[in-house]
Amino acid sequence: MLDPFLAEARALDAADPLAGFRDDFVITDPDTVYLDGNSLGRLPKATRETLRQAVDAWGGDLIDGWHAWLPVGREAGDVLAGVLGAEPGEVVLSDSTSVNLYKLAVAALDARPGRDVIVTDDDNFPTDRYILEGIAAARGLEVRRVGADIDEGLRTEDVEAALDDRVALVCLSHVAYRSGALADLPAVTAAAHRHGALVLWDLCHSAGAVEIGLTAADADLAVGCTYKYLNGGPGAPAFLYVRRDLQDVLVQPIRGWFGQTDQFAMGPDYRPPPTIDRFLVGTPPMLSGLAALEGARITARAGIGPVAAKARTLTDYALRLADAWLTPLGFRVATPRDPARRGSHLSLHHPAAWQLCQALKAERVVPDHRPPERLRLGFAPLYTRHTDLHTGLTRLRDIAATDRHLTFPIIPQGLT
Amino acid sequence: MLDPFLAEARALDAADPLAGFRDDFVITDPDTVYLDGNSLGRLPKATRETLRQAVDAWGGDLIDGWHAWLPVGREAGDVLAGVLGAEPGEVVLSDSTSVNLYKLAVAALDARPGRDVIVTDDDNFPTDRYILEGIAAARGLEVRRVGADIDEGLRTEDVEAALDDRVALVCLSHVAYRSGALADLPAVTAAAHRHGALVLWDLCHSAGAVEIGLTAADADLAVGCTYKYLNGGPGAPAFLYVRRDLQDVLVQPIRGWFGQTDQFAMGPDYRPPPTIDRFLVGTPPMLSGLAALEGARITARAGIGPVAAKARTLTDYALRLADAWLTPLGFRVATPRDPARRGSHLSLHHPAAWQLCQALKAERVVPDHRPPERLRLGFAPLYTRHTDLHTGLTRLRDIAATDRHLTFPIIPQGLT
Repeated sequence: MLDPFLAEARALDAADPLAGFRDDFVITDPDTVYLDGNSLGRLPKATRETLRQAVDAWGGDLIDGWHAWLPVGREAGDVLAGVLGAEPGEVVLSDSTSVNLYKLAVAALDARPGRDVIVTDDDNFPTDRYILEGIAAARGLEVRRVGADIDEGLRTEDVEAALDDRVALVCLSHVAYRSGALADLPAVTAAAHRHGALVLWDLCHSAGAVEIGLTAADADLAVGCTYKYLNGGPGAPAFLYVRRDLQDVLVQPIRGWFGQTDQFAMGPDYRPPPTIDRFLVGTPPMLSGLAALEGARITARAGIGPVAAKARTLTDYALRLADAWLTPLGFRVATPRDPARRGSHLSLHHPAAWQLCQALKAERVVPDHRPPERLRLGFAPLYTRHTDLHTGLTRLRDIAATDRHLTFPIIPQGLT
Repeated sequence: MLDPFLAEARALDAADPLAGFRDDFVITDPDTVYLDGNSLGRLPKATRETLRQAVDAWGGDLIDGWHAWLPVGREAGDVLAGVLGAEPGEVVLSDSTSVNLYKLAVAALDARPGRDVIVTDDDNFPTDRYILEGIAAARGLEVRRVGADIDEGLRTEDVEAALDDRVALVCLSHVAYRSGALADLPAVTAAAHRHGALVLWDLCHSAGAVEIGLTAADADLAVGCTYKYLNGGPGAPAFLYVRRDLQDVLVQPIRGWFGQTDQFAMGPDYRPPPTIDRFLVGTPPMLSGLAALEGARITARAGIGPVAAKARTLTDYALRLADAWLTPLGFRVATPRDPARRGSHLSLHHPAAWQLCQALKAERVVPDHRPPERLRLGFAPLYTRHTDLHTGLTRLRDIAATDRHLTFPIIPQGLT
């Protein structure tokens, strides 16, 4: 008899309006179940061709290639604006997420003189925490850490309780990198605004996975990467968002020539334009930037609504498999069960998570490991099928049930 | 009768020990004389293949590709160390030149508490000036600008006169972006050290063009781009150099996770390693980074000694052509005549420089324009022949002699 979960997966895939998008990606090993598209998204076929042409343009057009390359950051920004629920001219590619977080955090703090507190949460992504602590140390500010549940994420009321008129900036991840818990972006933004603070969102794990609605939420500032669900390629440039009315108010601290009015006039004084361009710094890496643009276009074409809907059916399906198969084997679901409270990945706690990850890879399922003791399974909606989840979780169940993971080395020092 | 200058060019090319390196580059239009390799270097053939393989690795290896990609910044850094006269472990690829300049300038200022002056020169590249002014404004410091001659460059004695025990940081370009004038890096460094200041060099226009000798000069800090003479491709990641004994003393301000000990342990506190890695920030753009590595390898293989020697014969030859052909037509050489005082480009002042640039491009010579009223001709030693300079300057002479440039539009507003 056919496993009813498999029958369901096949039915879900047959009804999937995004099913055709899988063909837009290079898939060299169809037997591998890739559940790490939230670390590095797959290679789009169009990007392979775009990069071939870009390399030829470098060789053939030489310096004149820049006529086509200079607008790429803005072009990608406008494509991403559609994915993020923002307006054209509010988003641009620039630097890395970390550098952008620094730029916008400092700009926001400068715009709230007299306030001396940054609010973040203790479950925030490492680079966010380190950068905020560094800025606070340099400026003599207090970092107020909201307690966030490592599995259930951040509660809006806990953020609200941390707000007062000393708070200049609230900086949080929209989707938590471990649990996949989704913060309530509109509610947190509104609460911060009531206290006169600005909010800077890290969208790395939500861009291309959930509907963000920056404009609808009157969001102030955001950053995020393009190499996860947006399929921009390894280390592709990050994006930053600044709401239009803040653009000529905020001045970012790294005053590079790409953020200068009439850049090539090379004038004596820094005069940033009143646009998103003032948040640019130096010469952007164009090969990686072109890949970011091409990748973002696919999500834009699919539409973030259908993409987010598929993320919900994928995570829901995987959760039910986990309940049925994995919980009895000592796993614990470490992601919120409410679909309105999660992104597009599932976190599973297990004391032998590291060994289970290695065993899964040996059996051609690619998960990720996040300390402490979590397997992280990412479901990139554009190319992940429900049947992939069935296959992947079947292999995980069988490994755990037969202790096959115990033959793999235990977690290395430093990753505990 | 053969033009004696052409005969000389042919003889110089025939004797050129680097002549074979031209074959390492993609040259799609052999009739074009490309004199802008100091804005964007040519595409190496090896890079075209490296990028094809990297795109395939993204598609096929997916997240596992990072095992090969993570070390690229250090690998490129070690290759570049040889080109810059530094030691392995003192150089790494990271971010853009502008971001690196910011990081190292702030780190240096933090290491000189109580001092409140930054010394730079008024001829420094725009991004350097803007960034230093921004840092100074944020910290309440004074920027002391040394007067530099726009054609002859910076005099060491003028830098020395600006030094006192208030100076925390001296930040200068090694080769001036307009004139090509070469600052005396060892002498300026020694003078700054006598006053207890640190020196941060911008090597954008000297890396891959002249012998820099960072270790020999006991240089403190440096940054530079890889997309000019180092042929790393459009916007390829920049490099930064920190002398080894300063590495565990300096803390840079953007505390990203790539600058963290045991990065993937994602620990609670920022603990930067005592190495060059602490100057990294976020996830690096790998396609552009691999191109930077491949490009740097060619200069390393050629050896910076022979490369710099060829830069001298190229600039010397071009200067003599300019004296003979162009000065009588109203041009003025705007580059130092002493070969020990210049990099690998030649600047020519002419009131109609913009129109002359456009006319040259129409006749397949690619120069650059730099306000005010300068043509900038870059001679990338790895692929530029003396006969190319003969062809290019012949066309320039003939254009100017017959006023063919006057049919081109005058300089646009904003670029004067």
